[in-house]
Amino acid sequence: MTQRTRLSDTEIDHLLKKLVGWERRADTLYRKFVCKDFVDAFGLMTRIALVAESLNHHPNWSNVYRTVEISLSTHDAGGITHLDVELANKINSLL
Amino acid sequence: MTQRTRLSDTEIDHLLKKLVGWERRADTLYRKFVCKDFVDAFGLMTRIALVAESLNHHPNWSNVYRTVEISLSTHDAGGITHLDVELANKINSLL
Amino acid sequence: MTQRTRLSDTEIDHLLKKLVGWERRADTLYRKFVCKDFVDAFGLMTRIALVAESLNHHPNWSNVYRTVEISLSTHDAGGITHLDVELANKINSLL
Amino acid sequence: MTQRTRLSDTEIDHLLKKLVGWERRADTLYRKFVCKDFVDAFGLMTRIALVAESLNHHPNWSNVYRTVEISLSTHDAGGITHLDVELANKINSLL
Repeated sequence: MTQRTRLSDTEIDHLLKKLVGWERRADTLYRKFVCKDFVDAFGLMTRIALVAESLNHHPNWSNVYRTVEISLSTHDAGGITHLDVELANKINSLL
Repeated sequence: MTQRTRLSDTEIDHLLKKLVGWERRADTLYRKFVCKDFVDAFGLMTRIALVAESLNHHPNWSNVYRTVEISLSTHDAGGITHLDVELANKINSLL
Repeated sequence: MTQRTRLSDTEIDHLLKKLVGWERRADTLYRKFVCKDFVDAFGLMTRIALVAESLNHHPNWSNVYRTVEISLSTHDAGGITHLDVELANKINSLL
Repeated sequence: MTQRTRLSDTEIDHLLKKLVGWERRADTLYRKFVCKDFVDAFGLMTRIALVAESLNHHPNWSNVYRTVEISLSTHDAGGITHLDVELANKINSLL
């Protein structure tokens, strides 16, 4: 099994217990951040962008003013992989 | 009429003729950008963020890898205003 | 007196007492930030960039890995003005 | 020889011929960019930050309004290495 192998439901449920703030939505890992204002939200997005580019694995995300919503999945695998869990953990470590 | 007065359909149709690349989607101005890669897309997003914060008027936007989708509307007015047209023009001038 | 009038030495000394972390270096307000890593440093820089563009007043700054050094002065006035103090205060409020 | 071995003067002179816009300054590769305005300059800086973090090799750089000055060297090697040349090439490919 590699970083890009799709995880089973049991594996995802198990891993989610250690991923504070993230939940499963269909075939993605989802987390919503509500920041202080736009400046704070875009500062967080920039730090996430740096981490994502460094992993060469990028989020599906949206922003409205101080809210940032992030969905992680691995396109090639058609679902959630260890790479998504790694990115979610790295995003959490930014906080 | 101020910057934040909701525009009529006729006004919007007229203004859209000069807004290259933008279209109307429900009560928003919408444009999609397909960049070279994530680095290019996030560079564009950063420049848009600077312009938006400076206008104190922010987009509803999303990003997936090299694609950036932007919807502009003025929440308080319940639709499209001159402020949205101004932001759309400033975004176009970044290109 | 306007935002862009050069402050006297006495005024600067007085204002510096309330500007935590900033010191006077020649004709500038200076502060050095040591962040956790590059991602953290560039996240701070992005938030400062948004604030600076919004004020239409920009820092003279440098970055090496996790260190950010900022010097503020008002070119037209040939020294430190209220605009520099305002930017310094806004940078402090990001922390 | 690895990516982090210090290059000789002859090697640097040879490599500089293919590095458009860069020059040698003491033990660094140096390039200055003059952009359209601050928004353009910070957009470039963000793209460079993404590339640098991805390489885990970061510039020594400064910005004043629309000017960005970059010096590249490899601290551990005490001079210019292939890693600096690689970062310089990646920065050039952003333009």
